[in-house]
Amino acid sequence: MLTAAAAGNRVSGDDFKAALPDLRLNLLNAQFDLAEAGFPVVVIIAGDDRVGANLLVNRLNEWLDARYLTTEVFTQPTERARARPMAAQLWMALPPKGRMALWVGGLMRQVRAHLEGEISTVQLEQWAKHLRRTQRMWLDDGALVLKFFVHTPTAVQKRRFKKAKKTGDGAWRYDERDWDLAENLDDAIPVIESTLQDTSVVGAPWTIIEGSDDNYRDLRVARSIRAALQPGLESPGPTEPATPAEPFVDPDQSATVLEHVDLDRSVKKSTYKARLARLQGELHLLADEARRRGISTVLAFEGWDAGGKGGAIRRLTSALEAGDYRVHAVAAPTPHERDYHYLWRFWRDLPLDGRISIYDRTWYGRVLVERVEGFATAAQWQRAYSEILDFEQQVTEHGTYLAKFWIHISPDEQLARFQAREQTPYKRHKITEEDYRNRERWEDYVQAVDQMVVRTSTQSTPWHIISGNDKRNARLEVITHVVQGLERTLG
Amino acid sequence: MLTAAAAGNRVSGDDFKAALPDLRLNLLNAQFDLAEAGFPVVVIIAGDDRVGANLLVNRLNEWLDARYLTTEVFTQPTERARARPMAAQLWMALPPKGRMALWVGGLMRQVRAHLEGEISTVQLEQWAKHLRRTQRMWLDDGALVLKFFVHTPTAVQKRRFKKAKKTGDGAWRYDERDWDLAENLDDAIPVIESTLQDTSVVGAPWTIIEGSDDNYRDLRVARSIRAALQPGLESPGPTEPATPAEPFVDPDQSATVLEHVDLDRSVKKSTYKARLARLQGELHLLADEARRRGISTVLAFEGWDAGGKGGAIRRLTSALEAGDYRVHAVAAPTPHERDYHYLWRFWRDLPLDGRISIYDRTWYGRVLVERVEGFATAAQWQRAYSEILDFEQQVTEHGTYLAKFWIHISPDEQLARFQAREQTPYKRHKITEEDYRNRERWEDYVQAVDQMVVRTSTQSTPWHIISGNDKRNARLEVITHVVQGLERTLG
Repeated sequence: MLTAAAAGNRVSGDDFKAALPDLRLNLLNAQFDLAEAGFPVVVIIAGDDRVGANLLVNRLNEWLDARYLTTEVFTQPTERARARPMAAQLWMALPPKGRMALWVGGLMRQVRAHLEGEISTVQLEQWAKHLRRTQRMWLDDGALVLKFFVHTPTAVQKRRFKKAKKTGDGAWRYDERDWDLAENLDDAIPVIESTLQDTSVVGAPWTIIEGSDDNYRDLRVARSIRAALQPGLESPGPTEPATPAEPFVDPDQSATVLEHVDLDRSVKKSTYKARLARLQGELHLLADEARRRGISTVLAFEGWDAGGKGGAIRRLTSALEAGDYRVHAVAAPTPHERDYHYLWRFWRDLPLDGRISIYDRTWYGRVLVERVEGFATAAQWQRAYSEILDFEQQVTEHGTYLAKFWIHISPDEQLARFQAREQTPYKRHKITEEDYRNRERWEDYVQAVDQMVVRTSTQSTPWHIISGNDKRNARLEVITHVVQGLERTLG
Repeated sequence: MLTAAAAGNRVSGDDFKAALPDLRLNLLNAQFDLAEAGFPVVVIIAGDDRVGANLLVNRLNEWLDARYLTTEVFTQPTERARARPMAAQLWMALPPKGRMALWVGGLMRQVRAHLEGEISTVQLEQWAKHLRRTQRMWLDDGALVLKFFVHTPTAVQKRRFKKAKKTGDGAWRYDERDWDLAENLDDAIPVIESTLQDTSVVGAPWTIIEGSDDNYRDLRVARSIRAALQPGLESPGPTEPATPAEPFVDPDQSATVLEHVDLDRSVKKSTYKARLARLQGELHLLADEARRRGISTVLAFEGWDAGGKGGAIRRLTSALEAGDYRVHAVAAPTPHERDYHYLWRFWRDLPLDGRISIYDRTWYGRVLVERVEGFATAAQWQRAYSEILDFEQQVTEHGTYLAKFWIHISPDEQLARFQAREQTPYKRHKITEEDYRNRERWEDYVQAVDQMVVRTSTQSTPWHIISGNDKRNARLEVITHVVQGLERTLG
């Protein structure tokens, strides 16, 4: 794969100069068109020729307009990056719609770490799998992902080092890493090749670029970027994958999950007080231990309007140290958030190691309100199930305790609560016409909830369906699950 | 100050219940009005009664609408926080216009650190000074800053601990820190009182709240927040300080700085090539050492349109490792950035320790384009000089090397470059009607630049005025300053 690419490609100085004006103009025009388009562009650059890849990045920064471009170099991960699942770093480097990012350094860092025995083959493959899946999500959302690997044969690299050392010209560009890799490149090539294959996805393969000649390397990549941008800008950005649309109501699946919730469970006030105090004390100690051991927690709350999510959450947070948790009240995305993939804001708000993120409404909005109200297309919400499972898997693989709650109440109980809220001055604002309108969609939501629970319950991230007609019962059920879940996670 | 506040204030359970509905409604309404208003609100809560302050924060979170509120707890600073000037943490926790933030924990963390000998009196005062100045800037920009200190007498705190320990009820809320502080509160009070004084500013004094009774404490703070929000929302948000407006053209200061730049300096191509190669090699090694030693660099570029900022910057970056630097092309703020103080985005983009941030146009836009084009009021750009000096002082006090460049060219040279750009296809987009219009304002800009240079040149952060009619000369002057500056900083 790599060696075949090293065919001795060159571009003469004159040809390079002649090609430049048109190419630069076209690149800039493509970039201006992109600014108006509805998708982001990620250009990933890697190479066994580190110096060549860096020179290429410098050149692209010169040719492209820096106002619409960010360059992200993935060097040793910082403490903050290590304190969250691997892909969080990728998500936070994702450019908004209309912008382009150049990414450098990630792939070879992993390959080197493997060659030096810091990470195992399994870890390298795990990393590749997450990179693959993350790309898949972005591509499905309309992103353009372009990947270039600069390969320069050992002999050429060695010749360059020697020349630089002898003449002193640009010798400072090379360091030990480069000597080491060139020295051992032939052994490294099989690992590089399998990693390139493992991180390729349909719609975003790696392009191997020969790096023996600077002009050839830079022209070839710049032309590929321009060519890839042009047709993309002409067709509508996000493309729907050609999977057959599932029917809105799945005929094979009748509502069963919510139907079987026993809504009659209730708890006496005195019992409630005593049990809550005991459970809060336990939760406090468990959260202390989790902080000390760097184990983080994600609690996801969904449920009917007026179901009691807020009250249940407050019974948890009042047992926690204020610095340990954050409650994220998830409403319609802001214009800024809308410039990103729908999962972006949830990645952003993941807890650092030892901390707790509580989401009051969650990423499941994609398969609940967005599905029922038609804000997401069928293809979008249907592929969301696996996207969500993948997100949650990355969170739990990082060692995080993740729990999901659906707080269930009956339509009658909801109506009674709406009416009670209207009687309480400071709760009246919580009730709008829309809440009453949503009640007409009750059966559609039941369908969506059932399908969500069936599709996204896994052994490590099951849904907890909470019996919520009695608020005291709901609060005790929630805090009991959290206490037990933390005990299990902490071993 | 503190002891006088402990007058045994109480609110009975019945009075508390009676007051609640109206208070909560008013708080929510004030918050909804705030969402439409053009300023942020920061509520700072501290206290010698840590448990009481936390309970207060919980209660405010319950009473206010979580969608418009974030709670930030300043515990031990993370590695990332320590890798930037202290106030960067405050700036990044500043809510956007229309939102409210609750801040907890910062003041007592400093006081404790001082009492335990971790930080000196000078360091404590330095911290207070920066907090004071930061508040000043935000207040001048229209922000509302409310500060509450919960004081509970030693005897009351001790009684609570003993009761909790005996009955087990809520005993988990208390830990060793609380015992220690209550034990030594009488010794700590002088330090707390002087820190409260040192962090008070006109328009944002500390309010001491007695914490002996939970109901009194929470009602008192909630009512103060409501009262402070209400008049603020009725009057226009940002208020202009009542300083006399300076005349646009300062009669005492004639243009001198730019007049005396020798624009005839030029460098032969062969000399340029040799010197640039040598300087780039030196820069590379210095940047390596700075990275290893965790010393960061901020390079600020201003200058006439077509003055050659981009070219000078590229001669620097091509000598650097791609992972070490970021170039921030500063254009008009985005809608998201406009929701913050004008300095916010520059704080956000400060380098971590060991890294380099290069700003292509800078915070000086406030006293250049915003002044000349009338985007900022006279009061806004006039107070910007000291705000900017304060920002730069915090950056350099952190150990960062900061350099500022004005690249100067003559009006004729600019015209020639505009015309040349129009002949180059990929540079044509850089020239617009506006660029020609700006030329008519040349003398206004000269005035603004002169005043800027005079007012913001300090010993540690002087302006470098670069002779730019000859591009080669300009590039060599810039890189020479950077190399010398880094050598000085690295000692």
